[in-house]
Amino acid sequence: MHLLVVSHEGIETLAAKQMSSDKALLLEKAFQLYSPGTECPADMISAISLGEPFLTTVDSVYEQAVHNEAVNNDVFVKDGEFQTLTPIKHPPKNVMCVGKNYAAHAIEMGSAKDIPDHPLIFTKAHTTICAHQDNVSLHSDITEQVDYEGELAIVIGKKGTKIEREDAWDYIFGFTLLNDITARDLQARHKQFFVGKSLDGFCPIGPSIVTRLSEEELLKETITTTVNDEVRQQAPLTDMIFDVRELIHVLSKGMTLEPGDIIATGTPSGVGKGMKPPKFLKAGDEVVITIPAIGELRNQMV
Amino acid sequence: MHLLVVSHEGIETLAAKQMSSDKALLLEKAFQLYSPGTECPADMISAISLGEPFLTTVDSVYEQAVHNEAVNNDVFVKDGEFQTLTPIKHPPKNVMCVGKNYAAHAIEMGSAKDIPDHPLIFTKAHTTICAHQDNVSLHSDITEQVDYEGELAIVIGKKGTKIEREDAWDYIFGFTLLNDITARDLQARHKQFFVGKSLDGFCPIGPSIVTRLSEEELLKETITTTVNDEVRQQAPLTDMIFDVRELIHVLSKGMTLEPGDIIATGTPSGVGKGMKPPKFLKAGDEVVITIPAIGELRNQMV
Repeated sequence: MHLLVVSHEGIETLAAKQMSSDKALLLEKAFQLYSPGTECPADMISAISLGEPFLTTVDSVYEQAVHNEAVNNDVFVKDGEFQTLTPIKHPPKNVMCVGKNYAAHAIEMGSAKDIPDHPLIFTKAHTTICAHQDNVSLHSDITEQVDYEGELAIVIGKKGTKIEREDAWDYIFGFTLLNDITARDLQARHKQFFVGKSLDGFCPIGPSIVTRLSEEELLKETITTTVNDEVRQQAPLTDMIFDVRELIHVLSKGMTLEPGDIIATGTPSGVGKGMKPPKFLKAGDEVVITIPAIGELRNQMV
Repeated sequence: MHLLVVSHEGIETLAAKQMSSDKALLLEKAFQLYSPGTECPADMISAISLGEPFLTTVDSVYEQAVHNEAVNNDVFVKDGEFQTLTPIKHPPKNVMCVGKNYAAHAIEMGSAKDIPDHPLIFTKAHTTICAHQDNVSLHSDITEQVDYEGELAIVIGKKGTKIEREDAWDYIFGFTLLNDITARDLQARHKQFFVGKSLDGFCPIGPSIVTRLSEEELLKETITTTVNDEVRQQAPLTDMIFDVRELIHVLSKGMTLEPGDIIATGTPSGVGKGMKPPKFLKAGDEVVITIPAIGELRNQMV
């Protein structure tokens, strides 16, 4: 199921959608109608904390809502009739990001000796987070080198420390798309990546969180980033140096992961800085990140 | 005034203390008695968000409480009768830390060419935060090189972007002490500092937040770190390469600062890794960080 946070008729609510469908189920209304004993969580972090029982209720109310659509039609809203908000506005920790997790990207940013033996992890402040279709400011007063980085992001489902590789999938709530927008000049100037990665609005996330994706399903997928419809990045997710299980394992060795934590898994080759000559984003550019089983994250630069 | 979060008779509450005093005022009780129209904030972030009016009420109830001590004695608790909790458990963003902000420390970690031209900023997850007198696990299953870093930390008082140097002091709620405990082996292995800096418990903060300290008063101070009473780090705060105003200015250029954000201002020379041979922390070691006008932060390694 694809879980979203939407704004509809001025109200912010959780919604559920199936990949092939052109409409989303408003969960608060649907819970009231089809699972009246159950309170609908107010936001995604609360939903994640409820875990499996929440997902089971969503499946059940979704099925009933489809079945009773002729009677109660207003629990569904069509694409275009709602605004997609970011699924998680304020994760417990800064968004954690993996640097140089695709060999070809490590090489384009330097050379083969930049392919890491251990994952490089840096963070982006929550103030960077914005939604699918939000405009992103280029902050042109402080940077001239804004670049995209299309990434798969993991949303953690439950608290855990010292999570073994074989158990890692149990700690995943779902997956989403993330654009790790970066000011390359600030990234270089400040050495540690935080400053160049943490400008307000530099982390579009969404549009939805896709739950119950198996490892087998995920690893069949390819991530693609386009700028104004030109393909810039394209790589199978199997190209990651440190895979989803390894990232959860390594990060949780000494640090407790929590429901709603977001781990961006790194970007493939094809960023603007890697082109000869480098090609940075300019006002009006539209960046679209796609993983077919997950969706499409679209943002315009302003 | 020194603001604390304390646990007393099983209840967690804000408290206020004067530097020279051996007792703290329980603010919830004091507000009820001496400012009955005003609700006492439930935690420090709420208090910070209230800003100046909160501090004025604290001053007023403190004065009345002293004046009426003979009648209402139980609003004060003596040192030893309460437990000091961390003043801020979960800041809005990860704790932001400045690397190599004292020239002598940059040199001991490398050479003179490591003295930065722009502040290096990395972060520590909120799951690292612990209190004065909490024991800190050395995580000896995953690191053999745990090191202390005594630091002055800024607590941001109000939301702000593009804060100019001359306005920076207005955005400060107060100052506290912070031990940026670091696993040097993990820090080196993962290149970006986040992993080696973010082990659970690796960020003692406190004991209190000191409000209304002027720049002039602050810059007279010296920071000292001892390990088992041996002085390891000692430097005047004027030794910082990027001062408090500059850090707020640079960080807020493209990123919105929020009430409760914590900025650790960097550590002087004298860390364990800089010694010849390096001297890392071991179980039983007690690290004490002192800035006389702010207090003393004491933690034992286990």
